[in-house]
Amino acid sequence: MLSKNKIKFLNSLQNKKYRKQHQCFIAEGIKIVEELLHSSLICKEIYATAEWKENHPEIGKNYTEISEKELKAISQLQTPNQVLAVFKIPALSSWKSASKNELILALDKINDPGNLGTIMRIADWFGIEHVICSPESVDAFNPKTVQATMGAIARIKVHYTAFTVLLEWANEKNIQVYGTYLKGKDIFKENLQKPAVIVMGSESHGISEELEKLIPNRLTIPSYPPGIITSESLNISTATAIVCAEFRRQTW
Amino acid sequence: MLSKNKIKFLNSLQNKKYRKQHQCFIAEGIKIVEELLHSSLICKEIYATAEWKENHPEIGKNYTEISEKELKAISQLQTPNQVLAVFKIPALSSWKSASKNELILALDKINDPGNLGTIMRIADWFGIEHVICSPESVDAFNPKTVQATMGAIARIKVHYTAFTVLLEWANEKNIQVYGTYLKGKDIFKENLQKPAVIVMGSESHGISEELEKLIPNRLTIPSYPPGIITSESLNISTATAIVCAEFRRQTW
Repeated sequence: MLSKNKIKFLNSLQNKKYRKQHQCFIAEGIKIVEELLHSSLICKEIYATAEWKENHPEIGKNYTEISEKELKAISQLQTPNQVLAVFKIPALSSWKSASKNELILALDKINDPGNLGTIMRIADWFGIEHVICSPESVDAFNPKTVQATMGAIARIKVHYTAFTVLLEWANEKNIQVYGTYLKGKDIFKENLQKPAVIVMGSESHGISEELEKLIPNRLTIPSYPPGIITSESLNISTATAIVCAEFRRQTW
Repeated sequence: MLSKNKIKFLNSLQNKKYRKQHQCFIAEGIKIVEELLHSSLICKEIYATAEWKENHPEIGKNYTEISEKELKAISQLQTPNQVLAVFKIPALSSWKSASKNELILALDKINDPGNLGTIMRIADWFGIEHVICSPESVDAFNPKTVQATMGAIARIKVHYTAFTVLLEWANEKNIQVYGTYLKGKDIFKENLQKPAVIVMGSESHGISEELEKLIPNRLTIPSYPPGIITSESLNISTATAIVCAEFRRQTW
């Protein structure tokens, strides 16, 4: 049985303020919970239906059995899926510890939680460990983000920091800084280098103007046929996927 | 003022059956409606608030003014955005008319409407005019798909046909057939050819087994570092973006 207070607590974790206060976040559904249980994340609480428990005997007594109705009361999914778990938000070392031979993804004012999650999944695929968001961006432990990562939340480190600080650091350390623009050099024809910071702008506003002088390399994903732009732009996660793939292709 | 019957009609267009019966579909929000009004699509009805009308004097009297409350009653958006319009579903010529020098995208059992819309936007960016879905896939005129296309719905032709027919046709016409698999040849190291049909499998089930013998070229997007797979897979629209970009890079 779930107490009213427990339901209130779990629902409060939808909110960044309470996630920060309690230093924990929620993951839902068979697939993601299973992946996170096998990760380095620390699980604090599991709420599951009898059906889930049957398929996870290894859990022993470390869980709270709830009814479908109770699951509905704490779930944010349209179709609740057997299990909801609370994990500890892991401690983060500084992004400055990012290996010097690596790629760092920097997201300027990303505000859609699903897009951030999809981008974390892309970073995970391409072995990009550090994603840095500008301070006004959506929280990486937002439940919609967690769901969209499909488990990558356990591996990708998301930092929040002012981009002027990040880009000045990169310039000082001789780390290449690239930004994606609607008008830039054809990414497929450039000779891409790593280590690098790759800045992706927001879908509606692009990269903040005040950062332009800190971004020496302006890249574009060319549309086809050449010279004819039909769609206004690519979705931010689509563009990030193409850019990361091209960096990996060239700098394997 | 909207009659009850009109509200019922507009809401019925959320449903594929009624879209087919009336041969029309709905688009919502300032941006997409504006783009579609400037396209070759035929607009049948516009329902807009006074605010929208003020910014679109060129519309004249060809619209129905509605209140915010009425808009809410017909809108499927979480935040209704001034305007909802009904467009005619355009007639489709056969996919066999696809230019012989081109790329054709084939989506096997795609079921998420947002993913289909995002993929149509990607196809639009890369000048891929024809997208072919297997018959059990989601409808391209689903309102969520239309919204996700960001206007590409006006240009991309989406066909529904059995993949055995499509792939046998391609093999007969000496059009290359590629499929994406978790285990295949590194797409970045293959010498990609066009004309080509590129088959993308569904996120959860991949490409249907019965199609395998019709797909001679099996491609993979390599993960990094080499040999270590962390994320289970990429999202279907993410993978499609990377594959289309690589085809365009190589076969410009």
